[in-house]
Amino acid sequence: MARTGRRPGNSGAREAILASAQELFSSVGFQRATIREVAREAGVDPALVHHYFGTKDDLFVAVLDLPANPGELLPGALAGDPDGLGERIVWTFLKAWDGQAGQRPLLALVRSATSNESAARMVREFVEHTIRARLATVIDADDAPLRTALAASQMAGLAITRYVLRLEPLASAPPATVVAAIGPTIQRYLRGDLDA
Amino acid sequence: MARTGRRPGNSGAREAILASAQELFSSVGFQRATIREVAREAGVDPALVHHYFGTKDDLFVAVLDLPANPGELLPGALAGDPDGLGERIVWTFLKAWDGQAGQRPLLALVRSATSNESAARMVREFVEHTIRARLATVIDADDAPLRTALAASQMAGLAITRYVLRLEPLASAPPATVVAAIGPTIQRYLRGDLDA
Repeated sequence: MARTGRRPGNSGAREAILASAQELFSSVGFQRATIREVAREAGVDPALVHHYFGTKDDLFVAVLDLPANPGELLPGALAGDPDGLGERIVWTFLKAWDGQAGQRPLLALVRSATSNESAARMVREFVEHTIRARLATVIDADDAPLRTALAASQMAGLAITRYVLRLEPLASAPPATVVAAIGPTIQRYLRGDLDA
Repeated sequence: MARTGRRPGNSGAREAILASAQELFSSVGFQRATIREVAREAGVDPALVHHYFGTKDDLFVAVLDLPANPGELLPGALAGDPDGLGERIVWTFLKAWDGQAGQRPLLALVRSATSNESAARMVREFVEHTIRARLATVIDADDAPLRTALAASQMAGLAITRYVLRLEPLASAPPATVVAAIGPTIQRYLRGDLDA
């Protein structure tokens, strides 16, 4: 027999964890928030937080209501020929966001990150810790933080112009066109010469 | 003797024109709004709109409370060696926005453009008509609209990461570092090979 309905209380615990995580990420930031503290505020055991949401990264993704965890998508894009890194990152990004499912939460994220400082701080810390840590495996330069930030600037700008402002013809350009145009930018920011 | 104070009524007319322009840009868009219509809605003569605000571009800049008119700054960046175009555009952008005076209206612009469709449309049409028309003088390619949109995506992303998210080390990077890193991107988007 298929399971129907939920056990009473589970939904409440899940919501309480999400609410507590949102509150904590906003007040102390992504970096300082701990699963233990989220659990304490929600009145549940830390094991239940891990059970429902996995890692702190995953919990953050759930709070932001993102359709995919950039920290999980990135390793797939990073594997392979280093010369194709930029193009693979742009492809991965478009695959995750071009679908309608990705755009509502992306809009919500952009709106909150540009309109309140605590959301901006969450995004900033997520980029600094999660994205940057993943990229560190393929960029071993001293200036890796600047390189990551430059790549983030182009990807954020692509999101804004393609999905929010919908500036044509970039908004409707086929993914291959976008990858050919922007892939080399990301490649240079991550591994090329920045003093040219 | 120095003039002190304003003639009564002037301030009211100026405010009425701004309110009417904001309303009209929002409802019919930048492109379809006319000075004549703005004047009619504000109950003043069109000549008074021109007297206070100059062109429709200038009126738009006043509505957005921008410290500088991008359409006026751009020609200075466009003049000169075509190979240095990208770097000059990034320099011009940083000179206008790096100062504190530029950042409050920039934040307001980003916030409203990402949070409501009519503001997004105003910005989109301003880029399409004013920025694109200026750039057309230095890009004579068939794909000039795509090139302009790509450059806009990087400049918007720079604004978001440097001023709104304040992602380090990009947020505090000296202008020369930003120009060296991002100038070649803009150069390639506007005049380079996009199919590489």
